[in-house]
Amino acid sequence: MILSALLTSVGINLGLCFLFFTLYSILRKQPGNITVYVPRLVAEGKRLLPTAGWVKKAWQPSEEEFLSTSGLDAFIFMRMFIFSLRVFSFGGIVGIFILLPINYLGSQLSDDSDFSHKSLDSFSISNVNNGSNRLWIHFCAAYVFTGVVCYLLYYEYGYISSKRIAHFFSSKPQPQQFTLLVRSIPVPPGSSCSETVEQFFKEYHPSTYHSHSVIHRSSKLLSLITDAEKLYKRFTQINQKSDAAQRQRRNGCLACFGHKADSSDHYEKRLRDIENDVRKEQSSLAGKEVSAAFVSFKSRFGAAIALHIQEGVNPTEWIAEEAPEPHDVHWPFFSLSFIKRWIGKLVAIVVCTALTILFFIPVAIVQGLTHLEQLEIWFPFLKSILRLAVVSQVITGYLPSLILQLFLSFVPPVMIMLSSLQGYISWSQIQKSACTKVLWFTIWNVFFANVLSGSALYRVNVFLEPKTIPKILAEAVPAQASFFIAYVVTSGWTNIASELFQLFPLLRNLKDRIFCGDNADFEAPSIPYHSEIPRILLFVLLGVTYFFLAPLILPFILVYFCLGYIIYRNQLLNVYVPKYETGGEFWSTVHNSTIFSLVLMHIIAIGIFGLKKLPLASGLAVPLPILTLLFNEYCRKRFLPLFKAFPAECLIKKDKQDQDDSNMSEFYDKLSNAYSDPTLKPIKFDGRHDSHTTPLLDSSDV
Amino acid sequence: MILSALLTSVGINLGLCFLFFTLYSILRKQPGNITVYVPRLVAEGKRLLPTAGWVKKAWQPSEEEFLSTSGLDAFIFMRMFIFSLRVFSFGGIVGIFILLPINYLGSQLSDDSDFSHKSLDSFSISNVNNGSNRLWIHFCAAYVFTGVVCYLLYYEYGYISSKRIAHFFSSKPQPQQFTLLVRSIPVPPGSSCSETVEQFFKEYHPSTYHSHSVIHRSSKLLSLITDAEKLYKRFTQINQKSDAAQRQRRNGCLACFGHKADSSDHYEKRLRDIENDVRKEQSSLAGKEVSAAFVSFKSRFGAAIALHIQEGVNPTEWIAEEAPEPHDVHWPFFSLSFIKRWIGKLVAIVVCTALTILFFIPVAIVQGLTHLEQLEIWFPFLKSILRLAVVSQVITGYLPSLILQLFLSFVPPVMIMLSSLQGYISWSQIQKSACTKVLWFTIWNVFFANVLSGSALYRVNVFLEPKTIPKILAEAVPAQASFFIAYVVTSGWTNIASELFQLFPLLRNLKDRIFCGDNADFEAPSIPYHSEIPRILLFVLLGVTYFFLAPLILPFILVYFCLGYIIYRNQLLNVYVPKYETGGEFWSTVHNSTIFSLVLMHIIAIGIFGLKKLPLASGLAVPLPILTLLFNEYCRKRFLPLFKAFPAECLIKKDKQDQDDSNMSEFYDKLSNAYSDPTLKPIKFDGRHDSHTTPLLDSSDV
Repeated sequence: MILSALLTSVGINLGLCFLFFTLYSILRKQPGNITVYVPRLVAEGKRLLPTAGWVKKAWQPSEEEFLSTSGLDAFIFMRMFIFSLRVFSFGGIVGIFILLPINYLGSQLSDDSDFSHKSLDSFSISNVNNGSNRLWIHFCAAYVFTGVVCYLLYYEYGYISSKRIAHFFSSKPQPQQFTLLVRSIPVPPGSSCSETVEQFFKEYHPSTYHSHSVIHRSSKLLSLITDAEKLYKRFTQINQKSDAAQRQRRNGCLACFGHKADSSDHYEKRLRDIENDVRKEQSSLAGKEVSAAFVSFKSRFGAAIALHIQEGVNPTEWIAEEAPEPHDVHWPFFSLSFIKRWIGKLVAIVVCTALTILFFIPVAIVQGLTHLEQLEIWFPFLKSILRLAVVSQVITGYLPSLILQLFLSFVPPVMIMLSSLQGYISWSQIQKSACTKVLWFTIWNVFFANVLSGSALYRVNVFLEPKTIPKILAEAVPAQASFFIAYVVTSGWTNIASELFQLFPLLRNLKDRIFCGDNADFEAPSIPYHSEIPRILLFVLLGVTYFFLAPLILPFILVYFCLGYIIYRNQLLNVYVPKYETGGEFWSTVHNSTIFSLVLMHIIAIGIFGLKKLPLASGLAVPLPILTLLFNEYCRKRFLPLFKAFPAECLIKKDKQDQDDSNMSEFYDKLSNAYSDPTLKPIKFDGRHDSHTTPLLDSSDV
Repeated sequence: MILSALLTSVGINLGLCFLFFTLYSILRKQPGNITVYVPRLVAEGKRLLPTAGWVKKAWQPSEEEFLSTSGLDAFIFMRMFIFSLRVFSFGGIVGIFILLPINYLGSQLSDDSDFSHKSLDSFSISNVNNGSNRLWIHFCAAYVFTGVVCYLLYYEYGYISSKRIAHFFSSKPQPQQFTLLVRSIPVPPGSSCSETVEQFFKEYHPSTYHSHSVIHRSSKLLSLITDAEKLYKRFTQINQKSDAAQRQRRNGCLACFGHKADSSDHYEKRLRDIENDVRKEQSSLAGKEVSAAFVSFKSRFGAAIALHIQEGVNPTEWIAEEAPEPHDVHWPFFSLSFIKRWIGKLVAIVVCTALTILFFIPVAIVQGLTHLEQLEIWFPFLKSILRLAVVSQVITGYLPSLILQLFLSFVPPVMIMLSSLQGYISWSQIQKSACTKVLWFTIWNVFFANVLSGSALYRVNVFLEPKTIPKILAEAVPAQASFFIAYVVTSGWTNIASELFQLFPLLRNLKDRIFCGDNADFEAPSIPYHSEIPRILLFVLLGVTYFFLAPLILPFILVYFCLGYIIYRNQLLNVYVPKYETGGEFWSTVHNSTIFSLVLMHIIAIGIFGLKKLPLASGLAVPLPILTLLFNEYCRKRFLPLFKAFPAECLIKKDKQDQDDSNMSEFYDKLSNAYSDPTLKPIKFDGRHDSHTTPLLDSSDV
């Protein structure tokens, strides 16, 4: 790629971004779009009309205000941007003002064209002459940059830990702090699970045991209730329409006034049937106990004791883990035994690895099937159209990339599915695990697939011969510098702008408004961390690895993170509603991914100094990854335990605070029922029912 | 090696063993040798004269009796033999009656010599024709053998776990069950460590905290006291000699009646000086507190709570670990901070790896220096002797192997030193860690060094290219079959017989008896697990890897384990005194090593079926190591936690038992002082003093 082409691309994409920004600023002021652009405020019952100056509004709230409105997870999501901005500000200054001129002054590539026709490679390390002593500046830059990144990582981990502790201290008593999920309960014959649990905990934790609720095998019931809810929603919609003719936005509805009375009766009858089924199922469910229970304790420290000390003599029985928030519980998959869950986990890992490595094989096959000739055979009647030059160009040029995008869009849901197979008990844990999976998938299929062009098997092979990795990467990575610069500009910038624009929700909203939908099934969305975090971390990886190879990438990445910072702040304040609170557990993914990026950069450095005939620098770079990994190991010891569980000091202090609190007896009453299965709550569809849906998602608020 | 040569070697070594046995049976009956052959009985104050029929006596005690006299660690040491005997009985039957005939019937090596001149390779898998379907029998044997070994491993792990729990339940209250070592105590300025500890635990564990004793920086004091003890021993010896002329075995002492009175006075004066120094040092030591303390609790469960839950907000402070038995505490190395200990650990790992990998380099250099010409240059006066044919043959033939043995004998002490560098707080943990180190050292420097002949760097290189490992091993391992058969016969059998004979203690005893030593410094030895277990596990490795390659090795290994079983049983009953009780923690080393052996066998199988032109079998063998590793992972989950800490169920049951015990108040009194630093106890050398030496080792018993 030459410089002028890059500038053109930057121009086009800046234009696109500007277009999106303008459209957003216009569209968000229209009252009909409030469920797209400020669903959060709608869900919270606020009806403030959005005003201009959204950038200012997104910028204004202080860290504390942002933390209190959007939760710790969103806060940490934003810390990721702040951390990246710091890293790449430093990297950008060093890269642009020191490394870039040195690269440009080299003559290895002997590119004699004028400035605007220069290949971008002239700005990369490839242009520095072999064996040149100027490479020592790159060497020093690698060391200094690593030091700065590690310092920032350490600072950030410490800062987030302190926020996590502070958040814990400021929180009200919450059921999940007092409750454990206990699985693999060995129920003796002739006894029920509930009796066994009560007996065991009264025997071994007499002073702290509070209550428990056994889990039931309720997946059939769940599907019945889901059906009923859908029917009920439809039913209320029909009733509302006939009753409330005064409602707005009735214009445009054409096909809705058919057999109103009939269908209303029909739905009512079906609802009654299902209701009976549900009651029958509920009463028979008492016997379908699963050997798992939520056990609540009188204090946080009491729960921690039962959590940390192995309970039974057999370590595969009485397995305790922290309970998730009540509305965050993922109810299926409770019935599995220890060994089944263990196998499920193994299967998920194997499938995930296979999917990641072999992803491009089915994509390539499907893309291969969409050649023009093939299409002509399948759809002979289209032959004349397909032979038009324009159509054929569009199809051959666009279809393969469309197919790739289609396949890619399936990846996060598939990873979510695999993670739930692993037997996690909460939506937050599933999303966290899927986040790691998607991250590896992205790094492999975007970074390594582009760097090591060739078959999937070839790429795996490279990593089976550890000795050759630095050399191969050092040859391949700099060669792709201009591709990734273009990638940041096209994919990165556009993604972030379209995040603001919310194309799909906007279209859905438009559809609803035209075809008499009335937003009855409106739900404020939550941010899909498992697809957003990997996408952003990929740019951190690109920035870190290309920092000393092709520093020209850094300004574009800086622009990406600046845009991202302000846009995601806006989205988190106005669009996304936090669905759960992990207390910042996502940070360890960010930390690990950054460490991986650094080590990858070091391996490439070792290779490239070798290629550039500077074996001494290559040898002296070897301690760099080792030191980085040791630093990581220290961070794991220093900070990670705080993200796994709270220390005794915090728990006991917090428990002592509660002792003076007069609301605790009320809380204990609630605690007993906090984790009862939603499907077992009484169901009544002729009035309001608030089973199953969480308060945040309750559709009746609109 | 040909068959007749093997038989000769077997004959010679059997003869040697028989000689050792006979000598042992004669020598042990002599009263003068009781400290060599039954030191344990001597140490325990029994003066039974040993009788004949030691094999019967060693055989007789039941498992329960053996367990109660020799402790759980010795019991597990013997279970290692029982496990190996079971494995190799099965393996031997399959190998000798099924695999051996098949190998012999092959014609790949086309060895036409008569039976007694057949090469041993004719009995190995190398002799089976390439691509022969008979190899499928080897393939099945590998699967079946793996299954049997895994079943036995599972059974044994379960059996030992149950013994461990039973041992815990039958034990009396012991200080280490109630005590934790707490390190990295953050002492605020202006406060002492003792105050900080008391304040912290009274605040956060008010109901269970009992007492604590802070650790002092006492290494200078320790060396003073050690000096004093040596002097005191010498002093009492001299006094005893002059006082008690009636003592036996005075004949033979020639040079002892010199300046008796003079030296007695001299020693007394020096002792008084040191005593003053010690007192001065002790009084100044109160200020030299180290930020570590032994904290005792009122119940086992209370200690477990403080152990398992992270105490402070900073995970690198208030680090708790289980306290060792009071007499097992390794007092140095307490003063180090978290980060220093972490660095110490890293350094130990690096040095240990370097030592293991590069061990042969210094050996080869030293061996290279002992060429005749070199010796002639160094010791020119020996020139005429060195030129004698006999002398030169002995030197060139024997000196290199002597040097190797000398270097090898330094390995266990060096590993002990490295392990103590890692900051372990007890002799048992140090020995356990050294055991693992010596094991890897042995496997690398005996097994791999012989299999992969070539430079150390070449061997390391092999493992850096994972894809080629199976092929290289499959070529190299069968080629060394006859070497290892000879190794089992010569090194294995002789080692075990000399273990019985106790050559060095016997010589020392002889020296003492001749040169007027009077056994005053007699100490019953404890078994050096860290050098014995790796040596035995090496034979398990040889048996497992050669099971289907060269089954001829199995009968010899069986003989080894039969001999070992009866001899070690005898030694553990009569010679070795248990110095500490880990509750069977050594078993995990045995388990892991066996799993490693199995996986190594599988990797060789994958390679050899490939070499033998049976790619299908090679491919079908791939699941074997994966399944074995999964089995290991399951065992780690199922059994390992029991060896790390006791579950709540056991602790609470045991605590409840104690509540009815009337001796507990007395025990609590003792508990407060159980872990006070031995160097800080009052010292008085003119009477008896019982500081520092443990009751078991107390020299005053003789």
